This record gives sequence, structure tokens and C-alpha cells, in this order.
Amino acid sequence: METVYWALTDEEGLAGWWTRNVKAPPGVGAVIQFRFADKGFNDMKVLELQPNKLVRWLCVDGAKEWIGTGLSFELKQNNGSTVLLFAQRGWKEEVEFMHYCSTKWATYLLGLKSLCEGGKGTPYPDDIDIG
Amino acid sequence: METVYWALTDEEGLAGWWTRNVKAPPGVGAVIQFRFADKGFNDMKVLELQPNKLVRWLCVDGAKEWIGTGLSFELKQNNGSTVLLFAQRGWKEEVEFMHYCSTKWATYLLGLKSLCEGGKGTPYPDDIDIG
Repeated sequence: METVYWALTDEEGLAGWWTRNVKAPPGVGAVIQFRFADKGFNDMKVLELQPNKLVRWLCVDGAKEWIGTGLSFELKQNNGSTVLLFAQRGWKEEVEFMHYCSTKWATYLLGLKSLCEGGKGTPYPDDIDIG
Repeated sequence: METVYWALTDEEGLAGWWTRNVKAPPGVGAVIQFRFADKGFNDMKVLELQPNKLVRWLCVDGAKEWIGTGLSFELKQNNGSTVLLFAQRGWKEEVEFMHYCSTKWATYLLGLKSLCEGGKGTPYPDDIDIG
């Protein structure tokens, strides 16, 4: 649980599964900058931090479809395992890009799982091409 | 496009990415039986078939949260690539199982992509454990 929370809040943790190019000042109110070279970028404002329980971000800049969406990572304990519930809510329209992102998120989250279990994630630019 | 449509409609195709234990009578109105041994099962009624364009199913039996949900696979051509838009709609509640299924779907869909590109899918029981 601590490891997952670390991966969601620490700059080195985030760099291990989403993108290697990340600047993550700590604390609520901070804006985390995720960069994906020519693939784009996004800025996430940290709205809420409940250690080992909940992380919430608001996308304040990036792809136009993402701006204003809220991202949440909820951690639960289940039979000794940590369950991570992720959601990106507030899409204005159900666009093709949303479907793309949904599948792409799964690849990053599986990388996050691997990272937290002692393996490696698949952060950009080592991310999985979903075509 | 033909290959993807095959993988979504043919018994052998479906067995290549979702579960090896599948019975898939052809045509609209047929009920496809997907079996996952002790992990569960589901029956999908085929609602619509537009060759190389659209496949729609209605879940008529299986996990209680799934019954009544509609599944759609929409195919599009984009710069010579086939884009597959998948959705499972009509969940009554945003339960934890829905988040689980969302990520699990991504693993099956990536397997479907691999299968259609000449590789192998990850059908049950060779599916990817998402924990």
C-alpha cells in the first residue's frame, strides 16, 4: 500500500510507470508536469492526498479533451493485497480518444502494478504501443 | 479489418483472444457461450452484425453485474490501420468489479490486437492476471 502510494505521489515513483519526464512538487495544490515529448503533455493539479488511501488530480492543461477531467486513485486492502481503483471522470464527450485512453491507461496501470511488485513499469518512452 | 471482424464473430477467432472455451453459433440472435471454468461464464446474445463495421452483443446471463449490459465493437479504418472501439455499457452501478473489468478488457483487447497481427492472444486460461 505504501509502495503504491509512493508510486502515485513521488516524482521517482511517477517516473517509474507513466513518463520518465515528470516534475512532481509534493503536496496538495502542487501542479505535476507530465511530458511525453512530441506525443503531448499534461499538467495535473493535486486536489487531495490521503496517505495510502486516495490521490486525486485535476487536469489543468494538456490535451483539450483532458482539461477539466478529474483523476482518482483509490487504494483498498483486500485479503492482504492492495487494490487500486483508477478513474478519469468528466470527459465532455465519449470521443474515440476516450476509448484509446481507457486502454492505454490499463497498460500504464499494469506497469504500475509490476513496478510496485518489484518489477519494472512501462513509462513513456518505454510504453506499450496500442496502435 | 476482415481479420478483426473474424476474431469477433468466428468461434475460432473468439477462442483466440477471450476464452478457449467458447461456443459461437453464427448470426444475429444467436447466443454465444463464453466459459471460464471456475472463474465464471457469460452468455452473449448477438444483437447486430455489420460485416467489418460493427458487432453488438447483449449479456443475457453470467455475472449479475453484467446481465443487461451491452457490448459493442466498432471497427474503423484510419490511415490503413483498423481501429477497434470497444465499450461495455449499461452497468447499473459503478462497482469495484467494473474497474476491474475495464482493465481486464484492455488485456484481452491487446491480445486480440496481437492475434490479428499474426501473433497470439491471451485467452482464458492463458489470460493476464491483473490481481
